[in-house]
Amino acid sequence: MKKTSVIGVMGGGSASPQTIEKARRLGRLVAREEWILLNGGRDAGVMTASAMGASQEGGITVGVLPGSTLEGVSPHITIPIVTGLGNARNVVNVLSSDVVVAFKGGAGTISEIAIALKSGRPVLLIDIELGNLFREYQQSGQLQEANSPEDAIRKIRKILSKAF
Amino acid sequence: MKKTSVIGVMGGGSASPQTIEKARRLGRLVAREEWILLNGGRDAGVMTASAMGASQEGGITVGVLPGSTLEGVSPHITIPIVTGLGNARNVVNVLSSDVVVAFKGGAGTISEIAIALKSGRPVLLIDIELGNLFREYQQSGQLQEANSPEDAIRKIRKILSKAF
Amino acid sequence: MKKTSVIGVMGGGSASPQTIEKARRLGRLVAREEWILLNGGRDAGVMTASAMGASQEGGITVGVLPGSTLEGVSPHITIPIVTGLGNARNVVNVLSSDVVVAFKGGAGTISEIAIALKSGRPVLLIDIELGNLFREYQQSGQLQEANSPEDAIRKIRKILSKAF
Amino acid sequence: MKKTSVIGVMGGGSASPQTIEKARRLGRLVAREEWILLNGGRDAGVMTASAMGASQEGGITVGVLPGSTLEGVSPHITIPIVTGLGNARNVVNVLSSDVVVAFKGGAGTISEIAIALKSGRPVLLIDIELGNLFREYQQSGQLQEANSPEDAIRKIRKILSKAF
Repeated sequence: MKKTSVIGVMGGGSASPQTIEKARRLGRLVAREEWILLNGGRDAGVMTASAMGASQEGGITVGVLPGSTLEGVSPHITIPIVTGLGNARNVVNVLSSDVVVAFKGGAGTISEIAIALKSGRPVLLIDIELGNLFREYQQSGQLQEANSPEDAIRKIRKILSKAF
Repeated sequence: MKKTSVIGVMGGGSASPQTIEKARRLGRLVAREEWILLNGGRDAGVMTASAMGASQEGGITVGVLPGSTLEGVSPHITIPIVTGLGNARNVVNVLSSDVVVAFKGGAGTISEIAIALKSGRPVLLIDIELGNLFREYQQSGQLQEANSPEDAIRKIRKILSKAF
Repeated sequence: MKKTSVIGVMGGGSASPQTIEKARRLGRLVAREEWILLNGGRDAGVMTASAMGASQEGGITVGVLPGSTLEGVSPHITIPIVTGLGNARNVVNVLSSDVVVAFKGGAGTISEIAIALKSGRPVLLIDIELGNLFREYQQSGQLQEANSPEDAIRKIRKILSKAF
Repeated sequence: MKKTSVIGVMGGGSASPQTIEKARRLGRLVAREEWILLNGGRDAGVMTASAMGASQEGGITVGVLPGSTLEGVSPHITIPIVTGLGNARNVVNVLSSDVVVAFKGGAGTISEIAIALKSGRPVLLIDIELGNLFREYQQSGQLQEANSPEDAIRKIRKILSKAF
């Protein structure tokens, strides 16, 4: 049996209307590919928008929550993982993802990009400018930019086809 | 949208043929109820047996792995959660479960029963004798015994019907 | 440089006056041996009693806290480790201890005994009756009973002398 | 009793001779202030250099290790905290620090800076250029640059004097 691919979608708990719209579109596209969408699970920002998009297309959505109960979970999450780990759950998010897509976010999102790169996970950035911070990973191709959700899907397909 | 119920199945990485058979039967029954089966995800003992049963019935299986890669994952796990947390992933297992069913296992299984009880999760025991260790939880009904997988399913149904 | 030995002291957040008195006595004796005392760090029960005993003798006390701030820390803790991990911090407690001493406690204490045994740490029980639960570890000598704090110190000395 | 201040020192497992020299100097200065030095505990780069500096002055050094044993611990660590959490131990590092000082490092160091800022810990940078990445934290003063270990000590003193 071949494991279904898991796409992690990271981004801020608060986000601009444009980012929200792109996150929802990405969620829809991920579900149409029959990939599982995984995110931080909360009912806010990029998390709930991407989960909404995926669930509108009948996709499976996994939300890795920081608290020790279901409080604050997005209604669009099919499978909540309740960790009680606080911010340490960010590590679980990226380790569980075959590819990580990051939207503009705060320090939490940057920590996820950093740990994903350190842990060998491919990362795609949408609308984030990180300067030269992770230049070595950009040069190796582990870190790439995507100029739209559609472009991200193309790049994920390419990454997944190499991985297996 | 109503969240799908998640049933955690705990037990040893090595187990007797009888326990393996019961774990597989429980997995099948969980899937028939359209509940999600969650366990420790490894390709061993009660973990892979219960996942096999569920996947034979087309159910979704979530495996919360201790390592930081997919190495050693059961082929019957649909959605692997890769934690890199070692034994601390036991806490994620039980917090993510609406009901925990525990088969005879070693110290790891006992730690999961203990944390589940401390965290307010209902626990059903199959073929485990714990003496008076958790008497207060037995008296309150949070900890119960089930004399077969079929009996466990009946008790889970009753617990879930009260919870919502 | 030889590392100072770390003695983990586990037990309930609420405890009987006799247990409190023994925990404080054990803390004093640990400090007199110039070992470091490590516990769950909260200002309650066995935790604060054992830390008080050690600090009265000028010992170093390490408290591994479940929350993400110093709130609720015992005033007798010299070095608080702030984890934000909730109950998963129990794993850090036992992994960081060369020897674990457990007083009568609730489900949290039992989870710590179980993970300590699974992780190969020697465990001494004071006033806990665990039945046959961990018989294999009792038979191998990894799990022993101590009938007083003084007896625990003697047994810790013997364990540490073998370990190095 | 007033808690001793804990200064977290972050930075790469491999580092240039100049950074190593500065890390050792910072370690010495931290110990002379009678603060506790906390880091990632491994026998490499900024970790072992800063611990060596502190221990040369008789200071206490706490090393929060990623593995589940003492393997690879720096010989200059007085108190090893063994987590078994992998990269999730980075969260414990910064939560346990009253002030975080970060030297030039890789993705792991950036994840620690990000989580420290998100968790409200003051951060001082030595020889790191982060561009505009955390501008809001620079503007609020939570994130500052220090142009030498001596300058870092001055800034830590100022931060600690405000905090209590």
